[in-house]
Amino acid sequence: MKNIFIIGVGLIGGSFALDIKKQNPDCTIFGIDRNGNYLNKAIELGIIDKKVSFEDLNKADLVIVAIPVDATLKVLPNVLDCVSDETIVFDVGSTKEDICLKVKNHPKRRNFLAAHPIAGTEHSGPCAAVHGLYKGKTNIICEVEETAFKLQEKALKLFSELGMRIRYMNPKAHDKHIAYVSHLSHISSFMLGKTVIEKEKNERDIFDMAGSGFESTVRLAKSSPAMWTPIFKQNKTNVIETLDEYINNLKHFKKLMEAEDFEAVYNEMETTNHIKDILNGINSIQPQTD
Amino acid sequence: MKNIFIIGVGLIGGSFALDIKKQNPDCTIFGIDRNGNYLNKAIELGIIDKKVSFEDLNKADLVIVAIPVDATLKVLPNVLDCVSDETIVFDVGSTKEDICLKVKNHPKRRNFLAAHPIAGTEHSGPCAAVHGLYKGKTNIICEVEETAFKLQEKALKLFSELGMRIRYMNPKAHDKHIAYVSHLSHISSFMLGKTVIEKEKNERDIFDMAGSGFESTVRLAKSSPAMWTPIFKQNKTNVIETLDEYINNLKHFKKLMEAEDFEAVYNEMETTNHIKDILNGINSIQPQTD
Repeated sequence: MKNIFIIGVGLIGGSFALDIKKQNPDCTIFGIDRNGNYLNKAIELGIIDKKVSFEDLNKADLVIVAIPVDATLKVLPNVLDCVSDETIVFDVGSTKEDICLKVKNHPKRRNFLAAHPIAGTEHSGPCAAVHGLYKGKTNIICEVEETAFKLQEKALKLFSELGMRIRYMNPKAHDKHIAYVSHLSHISSFMLGKTVIEKEKNERDIFDMAGSGFESTVRLAKSSPAMWTPIFKQNKTNVIETLDEYINNLKHFKKLMEAEDFEAVYNEMETTNHIKDILNGINSIQPQTD
Repeated sequence: MKNIFIIGVGLIGGSFALDIKKQNPDCTIFGIDRNGNYLNKAIELGIIDKKVSFEDLNKADLVIVAIPVDATLKVLPNVLDCVSDETIVFDVGSTKEDICLKVKNHPKRRNFLAAHPIAGTEHSGPCAAVHGLYKGKTNIICEVEETAFKLQEKALKLFSELGMRIRYMNPKAHDKHIAYVSHLSHISSFMLGKTVIEKEKNERDIFDMAGSGFESTVRLAKSSPAMWTPIFKQNKTNVIETLDEYINNLKHFKKLMEAEDFEAVYNEMETTNHIKDILNGINSIQPQTD
């Protein structure tokens, strides 16, 4: 693959560009972004070789659509309209059902692979792009059978070169489960940040008391609202379900405290300590990058 | 100070022992712990020089009480009974009101300094003890005026050698604010872990989808229930208040999603992004150790 097009030269698209260039020094990385400053920064940082527009897409071997999920719904059909029969196009969005539905009947559906690399940090933009972001990370691929076999192969070869492990899921299952292990974490973190900041209004000293535990739980509250709002919108039903369960668990914990049933409080925590083994499982397959 | 007694040779007590020994190679570190295995492990790891009992406390220059806060309520008066007039005793607990109240009228009250070093990890026990845990961290001291001036000086010199910055607070304010920036984070994390584990019962694959974001928000759910249950018990009123506010914020977020008011969802997150600056503030004073 010689001509690589990155639509959206932020953390995710930019990190793909860096790793692909390292693996294939002879390829040319073309960047498309509606943010001109991002494009200039991406050139300055050596993330892309050239800034281009949609008219150039016909010469692409690979197109990575790495923009917010609402923009992907609009942009992906146009991208498919422009590319050749030999081009593989994949997205990276955190929701998969809407996008698969959107291009279901597109004449170039077989040029598209629906992907979700579970990788990232709370930062965004081209400056946040890093080498090796995808090494050891899981990449969830949906509706693989809808993608042309030859083009699947091209994409899988790339993911393998970047060190990713592949999981196949249907879009519905993806959106349901990712709500628990990713979307809910972001809301819990944002609302924790909000709760503490509201308090801080009157008590400026409070953050002198915050340690690394607080920082860890609130880290995701630094994430981009422009990226996360459309994710919550597209995955509304699942996210509301997880939120309901989370709120009920918090209410139950509060009730135990009010009833002074501290034996039950202890048990709640001890049972959840089991998360250690689960996280060890994550770590054994996913070296941390952030 | 030659004879240093550590009561509770876990993460917090053990890390004090390591740093104190490094600063003062001539001192002897004596360990007291009701867990015999911990004591043996602490000797094996070079954290303490000798295991001793309460009868030996009369020769102590410094006593650090680093045990769960319910145990401190019972043990601290006995420790003060045993020590000489020249001994400085400090605790490290995450709640300060009950302990200050407990020893308020103790004849040796002036030998005690109520302290809360904001440092730690989600791990526990002597194996979790590390060098440099306290470097750059905040140490909150309560009711400093109740401690004999000479003994205050000894403790402050030690904290300064270990690289800590000092904040003075009254116990009531300490317990109120720490509920927001520490205790609530632990509950939010435990309940997030619980919510996701409950789901996992039927869906074994779900954790393949978890990334570093989930890991970060759920990290504190690995914490010790034996340490945290008595903290929640002693700080019940404040913790319930923070939980109430947190639950209300989550409910509000859910309501906005149900009403499909995604502009407001965006604004909720954007406002909370301000946490970046706050965390930068934390980082500039507190190098991360975990």
